[in-house]
Amino acid sequence: MRVALLGCGTVGTALVEMIAEPTSATEIELSAGVRLEIVGIAVRDAGASRSTQPWFPSALLTEDAKGLVERDDVDVVVELIGGLDPARQLVEAALNAGRPVVTGNKALLARVGGELADLASARGVDLLYEAAVASAIPVIRPLRESLAGERIVRVMGIVNGTTNFILSRMAHDGATYDEALAEAQRLGLAEADPTADVEGSDAAAKAAILASLAFGTEVTVDDVHCEGITGVTHSDVRYATQLGYVIKPLAVAERVEGRSAISVRVHPAMVPSDHPLASVGGAFNAVFIEGEHAGEMMLYGRGAGGNAAASAVLGDLIVAARHLRQGVSTPPASRRVVVNIVPVDQLWSPFYLSMDVFDRPGVLASVAKVMGEHGVSIRWMEQKGLGDEARLIFLTHMAKEGAVAATVAALGRLDVVDHIGAVLRVVGSEASGPSPGA
Amino acid sequence: MRVALLGCGTVGTALVEMIAEPTSATEIELSAGVRLEIVGIAVRDAGASRSTQPWFPSALLTEDAKGLVERDDVDVVVELIGGLDPARQLVEAALNAGRPVVTGNKALLARVGGELADLASARGVDLLYEAAVASAIPVIRPLRESLAGERIVRVMGIVNGTTNFILSRMAHDGATYDEALAEAQRLGLAEADPTADVEGSDAAAKAAILASLAFGTEVTVDDVHCEGITGVTHSDVRYATQLGYVIKPLAVAERVEGRSAISVRVHPAMVPSDHPLASVGGAFNAVFIEGEHAGEMMLYGRGAGGNAAASAVLGDLIVAARHLRQGVSTPPASRRVVVNIVPVDQLWSPFYLSMDVFDRPGVLASVAKVMGEHGVSIRWMEQKGLGDEARLIFLTHMAKEGAVAATVAALGRLDVVDHIGAVLRVVGSEASGPSPGA
Repeated sequence: MRVALLGCGTVGTALVEMIAEPTSATEIELSAGVRLEIVGIAVRDAGASRSTQPWFPSALLTEDAKGLVERDDVDVVVELIGGLDPARQLVEAALNAGRPVVTGNKALLARVGGELADLASARGVDLLYEAAVASAIPVIRPLRESLAGERIVRVMGIVNGTTNFILSRMAHDGATYDEALAEAQRLGLAEADPTADVEGSDAAAKAAILASLAFGTEVTVDDVHCEGITGVTHSDVRYATQLGYVIKPLAVAERVEGRSAISVRVHPAMVPSDHPLASVGGAFNAVFIEGEHAGEMMLYGRGAGGNAAASAVLGDLIVAARHLRQGVSTPPASRRVVVNIVPVDQLWSPFYLSMDVFDRPGVLASVAKVMGEHGVSIRWMEQKGLGDEARLIFLTHMAKEGAVAATVAALGRLDVVDHIGAVLRVVGSEASGPSPGA
Repeated sequence: MRVALLGCGTVGTALVEMIAEPTSATEIELSAGVRLEIVGIAVRDAGASRSTQPWFPSALLTEDAKGLVERDDVDVVVELIGGLDPARQLVEAALNAGRPVVTGNKALLARVGGELADLASARGVDLLYEAAVASAIPVIRPLRESLAGERIVRVMGIVNGTTNFILSRMAHDGATYDEALAEAQRLGLAEADPTADVEGSDAAAKAAILASLAFGTEVTVDDVHCEGITGVTHSDVRYATQLGYVIKPLAVAERVEGRSAISVRVHPAMVPSDHPLASVGGAFNAVFIEGEHAGEMMLYGRGAGGNAAASAVLGDLIVAARHLRQGVSTPPASRRVVVNIVPVDQLWSPFYLSMDVFDRPGVLASVAKVMGEHGVSIRWMEQKGLGDEARLIFLTHMAKEGAVAATVAALGRLDVVDHIGAVLRVVGSEASGPSPGA
């Protein structure tokens, strides 16, 4: 099977090693029954320095990606360029030429995944993308095939290793947000510009892909409500621990209000410390799935690193090669189910609220009055002196998100309120969640 | 797609409901793109009482399983009878007639899985068995496809919910083995005769299936070294907690001594309490996989219950139906890799040992001398008075299993030793494991 590789960064180089290194190539052939051969590697600058390993096929480098995709001697195309353009044109060209495509490009899939899937289906070739969500952890194939008969109720994923690393460091090592971010950057877990991670857009693309597969419908990144982790303070993290929770960066896709409505969103949330997601620390990823029949399950593993992502791509490549030999393709996931995406202000959840107020008589009464007027009912609160000010921490009963937003706006207009901090959703029903302060 | 169902116990009945109940059937057709129809249900006694739901197709019951499998109007066969005979003959008859088979029969697969896979391959039809290991948790398909390019180093599974429930109850609720077993029986988690669970043969069949897939070779249940949990006492469970471990019932398949040797075994083991498997409690199952490139991952979920198993069968059924329509089948997993299964006495591990001795001067010296003579080096020990006797608890450094067995035999011949309790392997290298007593 002759493979054209588009893009040769960390993941691409790791993939080339797995395919081109002789022992590894023989082992793949023996265990997987396919012989893979790289016939071209498209890069932006063929002269840039790359791997100096003897097996690295430098002679195959080219700057003509379009030409490579359309070469007659290419069987399968691997797209690891990322981003929308020119990745989209190249993937379309490959599919149009009847060539299966393996990609890890979450931005592309979350934007035009439906159109690409239709094109692949029309041409009868594979479009596989296990590496797009949670790296080497098998998530896409289980959702597409193993759970094809399951009515999935909710998917909650920790799908961004950078933000999970930052929040874990804040919880376990007492680091501030800035210290934890700086450490993530030093370790290569965060970009110099961390916006896509910390503001949630990376996770939002993955949430769109997960939601599309889980509910057999078409969700794009524009449908995803997205909140970053930049508002989470060290104080919030400490309160979470004290209350029996852990703050985790979640991508959530769930059915609400019956069968045909869903919510898809990305935000930090308070997860009960005995929930399986609570123990997913550091840069690890996990996807927690609740099925009507299968119950709860979690797929957990390393969410970052070139080798892990390359392993996911290689698994897809082997499946694509086997299918090509059989003249078949993985049936496209359904996108036919019509769902209504519920606006986030219509959702109900218990909330955590933190605010700093001037420590005067009657301040708690004023705050509590505003909450009551908006129908936000208090389940637990604590007041802590901070010199002239006091910090108020609330856990609410189930409240409508729009009502909480209105409460926060009204509280912000009170003279006695100096600053409103994090407003975080709390995972777990009130009945089943742990009792705070216990 | 016309489905013949062989066997209609808990899982079969749950499957019939998913397929025959009208709302559910429509939902499957919409999301999965296949319409499933049950055309016959083979049972031992067609007159026995069954579901009284209006959708239950009692008219389809038959006692002629062989006749059903060979009927012209059957597209796919689901085997849920269990055991070797007549399941084997029926599965062979179905495959020989060119019909895909979906089964959850671990005993059959662990015994003659290789022959059945060859037969399915020769006929070009699917043999799918996601339900055979860890119920609805996607394990088989990820190993067969997603990780097809991954060099798997080790698979450690908690694949028997009954024994995990018993050990969890002993650890968390202070129950004795007998109390925990009785509770498991009361809850329907253990059979009246619990031998297959507590002595490990159920887990051994699953270990053989996992090892075959992980290493692309053929491992049968006879190759699996098997120890039950019946020797684990309440005292061992308490010591484990104190030392920072949890005792878990494991199925282990791992590479040892380089590329071509493996070990496949089932036994209770001390798992460090910060290991992801340690938090898999109750009747939950999990499979922990270590890959050379993908790193560590864990697939976790509900390991028991008719609905969960039926969900796994339904997922396979949908894949089989799609493949049948395309005229293809899942490529058989490789069984071509030649491996040497290392006898268990050649393996190295740290060990936990517990023994009761008569409390006389010099007793510890005698015990320590025997251990030293066999090359078993002590890493940590504790002596605890029990009236006239004392209990000695040891953690050893890495020791050869054969040497530990010889040590135990020699200790048993000492007059001062009254009773030797559990001998448990400790998971995790000495370097990376938590420090005991810390």
